[in-house]
Amino acid sequence: MTGLGHQDVTMFFLALATLLGAARIAGELALRLRQPAVVGELLAGVALGPTVFGALAPAAQGALFPTSGPAAVALSGFATLAIALFLLVAGIEIDLSAVWKQSRSVAIVAAVGIVVPFATGFGAGLAAPRWFGAADIAPVLFALFLGTALAITALPVIARILLDLKLFHSAIAVTIVSSAILNDLAGWIIFAFVLAFMGIGQGVFSPGATAAITVAFAAAMLTAGRWAVNRALPWVQAHSEWPAGVLAFAFTLALLSAALTEWIGVHAIFGAFLFGVALGDSGHLRRRTRTSIEQMVSSIIAPGFFASIGLKADFIRHFDLPLVLTVLALGSVTKIVGCRVAARWAGFDRRESWAIGFGMNARGAMEIVLGLLALASGLIGERLFVALVILALATSMTSGTLIQWCFGQRREASFMKHVSARTFAPGMSGDDRFEAVRKLAAIAAEAGGVDPVSASEAVVRHERLYGSAVGQSVAIPHARIPGLTQPVIALGLDALGIEFDTPDGRPVHVVIVLLSPMDDPALHLSILADIGRVFHNPETAAHLARSVRTMTELRAFLRIEAGE
Amino acid sequence: MTGLGHQDVTMFFLALATLLGAARIAGELALRLRQPAVVGELLAGVALGPTVFGALAPAAQGALFPTSGPAAVALSGFATLAIALFLLVAGIEIDLSAVWKQSRSVAIVAAVGIVVPFATGFGAGLAAPRWFGAADIAPVLFALFLGTALAITALPVIARILLDLKLFHSAIAVTIVSSAILNDLAGWIIFAFVLAFMGIGQGVFSPGATAAITVAFAAAMLTAGRWAVNRALPWVQAHSEWPAGVLAFAFTLALLSAALTEWIGVHAIFGAFLFGVALGDSGHLRRRTRTSIEQMVSSIIAPGFFASIGLKADFIRHFDLPLVLTVLALGSVTKIVGCRVAARWAGFDRRESWAIGFGMNARGAMEIVLGLLALASGLIGERLFVALVILALATSMTSGTLIQWCFGQRREASFMKHVSARTFAPGMSGDDRFEAVRKLAAIAAEAGGVDPVSASEAVVRHERLYGSAVGQSVAIPHARIPGLTQPVIALGLDALGIEFDTPDGRPVHVVIVLLSPMDDPALHLSILADIGRVFHNPETAAHLARSVRTMTELRAFLRIEAGE
Repeated sequence: MTGLGHQDVTMFFLALATLLGAARIAGELALRLRQPAVVGELLAGVALGPTVFGALAPAAQGALFPTSGPAAVALSGFATLAIALFLLVAGIEIDLSAVWKQSRSVAIVAAVGIVVPFATGFGAGLAAPRWFGAADIAPVLFALFLGTALAITALPVIARILLDLKLFHSAIAVTIVSSAILNDLAGWIIFAFVLAFMGIGQGVFSPGATAAITVAFAAAMLTAGRWAVNRALPWVQAHSEWPAGVLAFAFTLALLSAALTEWIGVHAIFGAFLFGVALGDSGHLRRRTRTSIEQMVSSIIAPGFFASIGLKADFIRHFDLPLVLTVLALGSVTKIVGCRVAARWAGFDRRESWAIGFGMNARGAMEIVLGLLALASGLIGERLFVALVILALATSMTSGTLIQWCFGQRREASFMKHVSARTFAPGMSGDDRFEAVRKLAAIAAEAGGVDPVSASEAVVRHERLYGSAVGQSVAIPHARIPGLTQPVIALGLDALGIEFDTPDGRPVHVVIVLLSPMDDPALHLSILADIGRVFHNPETAAHLARSVRTMTELRAFLRIEAGE
Repeated sequence: MTGLGHQDVTMFFLALATLLGAARIAGELALRLRQPAVVGELLAGVALGPTVFGALAPAAQGALFPTSGPAAVALSGFATLAIALFLLVAGIEIDLSAVWKQSRSVAIVAAVGIVVPFATGFGAGLAAPRWFGAADIAPVLFALFLGTALAITALPVIARILLDLKLFHSAIAVTIVSSAILNDLAGWIIFAFVLAFMGIGQGVFSPGATAAITVAFAAAMLTAGRWAVNRALPWVQAHSEWPAGVLAFAFTLALLSAALTEWIGVHAIFGAFLFGVALGDSGHLRRRTRTSIEQMVSSIIAPGFFASIGLKADFIRHFDLPLVLTVLALGSVTKIVGCRVAARWAGFDRRESWAIGFGMNARGAMEIVLGLLALASGLIGERLFVALVILALATSMTSGTLIQWCFGQRREASFMKHVSARTFAPGMSGDDRFEAVRKLAAIAAEAGGVDPVSASEAVVRHERLYGSAVGQSVAIPHARIPGLTQPVIALGLDALGIEFDTPDGRPVHVVIVLLSPMDDPALHLSILADIGRVFHNPETAAHLARSVRTMTELRAFLRIEAGE
């Protein structure tokens, strides 16, 4: 009746839980090592797949991740759904209107950044298709694919890297992101052509008709579809439960659009992606809806999908060093140099031009999706698939570091780096203002290795002269202390509230004593700004003082406040 | 390679889109008719299944929702996952600690409310198993199932009804919800026994061992598991990205727990449900995490699942009127009368006791899940399945109305009911305070059929004497107008802001002129309270004035503000 027997359900759930759990843990480790999460997710899949787990315990691996039978079909149903939803989110992130507004610099970088690697890949693919591992298809189709694979850029990974480096609103970031958008669009359209001419669709339409219908569908979705979605959204929001109505609208139409492109004869992901672009461009799509969709897909579905990719091949058996090195070199050199030259031409300085080149080189998830589809449709073999995945991993892992290196070291303003379990005082009830300040200053001074008595004198003197309550139930008593090399922060909580001389008359629940070195005013200010950002909401401090008792809880609380 | 061919992917996506879209639309219609959304979702499935669509166009229905082949397996994989996640959320909603705190009234109502229908069902099932449509199994097992089916209560549906009726924090609501929790727990444990003794698990353990291990697992999850989840949550929140880390933690462990119970030999949903109870009881589970999980499951996954239930049977062919009437009568009478008598005994008055009886009678989703599992495991046939689904629908649809009838008519305080397109003035830039008030008062008076001149005089006089700016950039000029039978509201927006004599010195962006009848101070106050609630956030008014231009956009905006 259910289609899945007792044993199938057990294995399906177990496999899914293993993929999700392993992907998340490995993703977190990657973030800890300042790498994109997708790197960890993929490596988790490689570990669970034939490469590692399968080599060590083939029987157990085959039982957990079967390749045939109902559990395997259910798992691949999940993966197919996941890839379509991932492309929906990738489409939503694309802001076409921002691209139109950009100056000629974007056009130059995008054009050169596509044409140089594409031409190289096309030429190489045409010259030696067998050497690159082409399947038994027309060399020109394989050459088109290889060109696309080298030319593609991964918008989500770059956006994430630029956000992490706090460069997202700089001129180079706008150029990189806008060029990457055009890159993605062009790449997927060429790939749709390749699939159409390969006849993946097994013949509802002829290849030529498939290609023509695909282009017509894309044009319709980006014009009439975009207009219709923009008109329909306010109506849906007005006449349905929020957010269920909008979410159902988005997912239903994305799946319909996906089913349509699959039926036309290209892959379902095109439909999902194009509908995502139309949806993301609507000014009526609220930030909270966008966040809901992205959260749903990015936190659970996408990691599971990326982990499942590692199951597809044995990354050691199909590792072909000359091929890997050739793909890495061709892809990276043409992309970095092409974009760097184009950026100089468009007027960026040397440093910025290198940064743009390195940024555009990040391949990330898009390259992997492209490789997976090519493998699944018999366009390429496992050897080239493995090489493309490695190209994606290597470029995604190095982009951030290389961009950072262009601009030198940047400092992060996260005040929690200067708080430790020693300097955290969760329950201070009963102290008056100066008592509390003196006590916390002494704790901070001891942790920083300076004299507690003179440090607390300095802080209390500053407090008497200037006060330190900044509103929102927070006070930040501070002083510069000679001999200190690093800032030290002591953080005290008082659930009852301490009377400070506050501008808003509210009692203070969080007292943050900051001792900073004599010579670093910029760091001092960035810490104050960071504290201001975290305690932006007037209720945060009181809530914190009421609910937090341990350092772990404090970190959890602030992470969630800061993560909004 | 992917397990799903081109045709399969097309049909899988098309089927899923149809289910999600139809479920949402029918769910919205049900809400519009003041019915629980699940009623609409189920009926959408009945329409798409063999009952309607299949009867009209069997070939098309069979193509869209195949019963065998990869697309069917992928779809049933989705449904299996959906049912487990739905039970996870049902478990999270159960607050065991609240139950322990309740007085003896809960114990009495819960005990009688379980025992009376259970004993009746058990007796009837034992006396005439064949007549009720038992499969070829031991009559005592069928009798246990029928008792459980009549005794079950649907926590999510009741909670929703009580929320809708604004009764959720009343004493009867606490009694109903707490009794329903005990009801659910007892019902599922009995059902697990039935499944164990039927040997659904196909023999990893003997039936007795399966039952014993299930009880041991449940006990462990509700004690040690609960403790471990509560210890682990802050650590996960502190050391992972929010919300991805917590969500992965919840879903991974829910799936593992589900796989474990499926392997033990009862159904996967028990594991998901028990883990949900353990997770929901943790004080460290933040409201936003809870909301994220519930949103993900309730808005997309659960409606799709409920619609898919309608595909399982032909509700006309298997409709057996005597059986349906018997099940309805036995189930409802024993539940309503049992709970009503118990509530009187526990000290509630007549009206409240009837309300408790009607509330406990709502079967909703739980009954349907129970029936579906019994059908899938061959415990019952289609006839009884259809009767149980009808019992669930009928009791869920009538509970709200009957409870309302116990307490008489209640008025809703939604100020937007009194605003119409005629009284909405989106762009008022340039007016000064009294000009704006006069203009809006005249619009409102015309819409209410009273004299505009004297009405605007009255409002302006009131404004001069008392002022009407209430902070948060909102002003509510008002007056009581003789001859008016209904309140009328005119709502004006000014993106630039109007200088009122505001307590916080901020300009006013939203002016809400309220004309109310002379004799209804309670309604007047409830409208003011409603306005205060909607404009709780200080930025809402300015944002509204900047972004809204039409009545549809206004409704959409306020729905989302109010829906938080």
